[in-house]
Amino acid sequence: LTGIHHQIARTIRRHDLLPSGSNVLVALSGGSDSVALTYLLLDLAPGIGFHVAGLAHLNHRLRTSAARDEAFCGDLASRLGLPLLAEAADVAGYACSQRLTVEEAARRLRYDFLARAARQVGASRIAVGHTQDDQAETFLLKLIRGAGAAGLAGIYPRRGAVVRPLLEVSRADLRRGLECRGATWVDDETNANLENPRNRIRHIVLPELDRTYGGPVRPALARAADLTRDDAMLLDDLADVVFSAVATRSGDGVELDVSPLRAEPDPIVRRVILRALEIVAGGREVGLAHVHAAVDVLAGATGGADVPGARVERRPGKLVLRSKGLLQGDTLNRS
Amino acid sequence: LTGIHHQIARTIRRHDLLPSGSNVLVALSGGSDSVALTYLLLDLAPGIGFHVAGLAHLNHRLRTSAARDEAFCGDLASRLGLPLLAEAADVAGYACSQRLTVEEAARRLRYDFLARAARQVGASRIAVGHTQDDQAETFLLKLIRGAGAAGLAGIYPRRGAVVRPLLEVSRADLRRGLECRGATWVDDETNANLENPRNRIRHIVLPELDRTYGGPVRPALARAADLTRDDAMLLDDLADVVFSAVATRSGDGVELDVSPLRAEPDPIVRRVILRALEIVAGGREVGLAHVHAAVDVLAGATGGADVPGARVERRPGKLVLRSKGLLQGDTLNRS
Repeated sequence: LTGIHHQIARTIRRHDLLPSGSNVLVALSGGSDSVALTYLLLDLAPGIGFHVAGLAHLNHRLRTSAARDEAFCGDLASRLGLPLLAEAADVAGYACSQRLTVEEAARRLRYDFLARAARQVGASRIAVGHTQDDQAETFLLKLIRGAGAAGLAGIYPRRGAVVRPLLEVSRADLRRGLECRGATWVDDETNANLENPRNRIRHIVLPELDRTYGGPVRPALARAADLTRDDAMLLDDLADVVFSAVATRSGDGVELDVSPLRAEPDPIVRRVILRALEIVAGGREVGLAHVHAAVDVLAGATGGADVPGARVERRPGKLVLRSKGLLQGDTLNRS
Repeated sequence: LTGIHHQIARTIRRHDLLPSGSNVLVALSGGSDSVALTYLLLDLAPGIGFHVAGLAHLNHRLRTSAARDEAFCGDLASRLGLPLLAEAADVAGYACSQRLTVEEAARRLRYDFLARAARQVGASRIAVGHTQDDQAETFLLKLIRGAGAAGLAGIYPRRGAVVRPLLEVSRADLRRGLECRGATWVDDETNANLENPRNRIRHIVLPELDRTYGGPVRPALARAADLTRDDAMLLDDLADVVFSAVATRSGDGVELDVSPLRAEPDPIVRRVILRALEIVAGGREVGLAHVHAAVDVLAGATGGADVPGARVERRPGKLVLRSKGLLQGDTLNRS
């Protein structure tokens, strides 16, 4: 076992990603990260005591190379003697019908597919190949898009059944490991497109930050995400307690008791309101601007505000969030 | 009054920076930010009800243009009919004798000087010219240097007597305002030096992030700092309560009760330990690595660790931080 194996074993143990005896499904795109994830989990399975139940590949049908990628995954699965669960999705069509960005539509369809595939092979865990590079890139992307602590917390090592064992290793190290064992992968040619914000962060901003700092900044960004996440999780727990005390679910929305809520500090008020907004949003994206709009209504600065999927209004003693109805096919599966 | 005036008045009111009847000393370097601050506070003083008691300029004697800057500040003060408190400091010598970076030495000498100057003119507030640009640059600098939530909280609108009314306006808007009134300022020629990390962030990284986002990212970064600061202040308050319950000051250090401390969540444990480390550090810089080293000692993973100015060791039931003695001239004045 190499240093990468040990780092991944530490991540798995620290966050209890793959308990002894668990079955894990590995999400395989065919790119270097997910191919490395597949090999590394197979290496670590006997020592840690989990079992790789199969590989899952979703063909997004967005790129001309999609068929090549699916064939590559099929080859890899049969060479490794693992079942491959493959499916094709109409991402572009789903994005149009649900009025989502292509990125958001792909994410939802992917996690829905992975949940189904996991049930099919009896897996209680789904391993995905996010790396420390993804963590740093996501942190900067959320930062410039105006995320609060929730966004800066970045990618979680575990969310429900989804686990990310590679979150503390770099893509460069993973590729070196693949090259050492003579393994191949497919390249996503769209990763070179500098029109895409994530690719600009990856190929221009992060290298310039490395030059400014005089070394790789990726670990520092990942650590900032870690610490912000720990802080956010504690504040989320505190906000949960307050939410239970002040919120009432009604048939078509949520009502919050104004007086006890306004007695809480701002970070708790914002989180309680975010929770209520997410309930009535029915899967639509809730942003910081919506939280601020609802806080203004709470404070009496405005009488009401439109938020995703709902209307927020002030009534005597209550902040009322009235849903405009769920979008068809919405789920609350979130990575 | 212009839009900038209104924005600054909002910042002053929201954070109670300049209460009615207060006397404020304005820190003046001669650069565009502090010159704008001087004019804007003079404009706003009658409406808000505070009084500008004088200007203060510290000659750092680090640049060849230092004498020109001091003369410029003298001219401005006499034109505005305000007293100028000026002093020269041997920053380079202080940095050597106290083993500090030049940046850190300048910061300490500047805030010490400003505190003395404020007493001299009977001012209860010291206004300094940090802008939203400084906030965004500081956020990114701390981020790449590996700051936790404490660092990402960035620059505070108020810390003790020091207030920052310009923290929500951009440098570009301030300069436009100065140009409109025909006011001049002096340029710090070292701001163009791309060897300096802050200048690289300002001139290279932030413009590239703007291109990636498709608009200015400065407001989003400042907002992230705001939200992180609110979260950090709440967690700091919670940690204060725990610190009081578990910490005992001894003659040459601090002792922490292990059992109740280990029962707290990680974000609280880290903050309690940071507080103890800062007490024994006697003004030396305490970093995240030192907190982690002390947490390892707390967890029993290592028997002891050297931290700034002190030694941390595990004793039965106690985490003991034993000071190696304060540095001469150290103060705990922090911006």
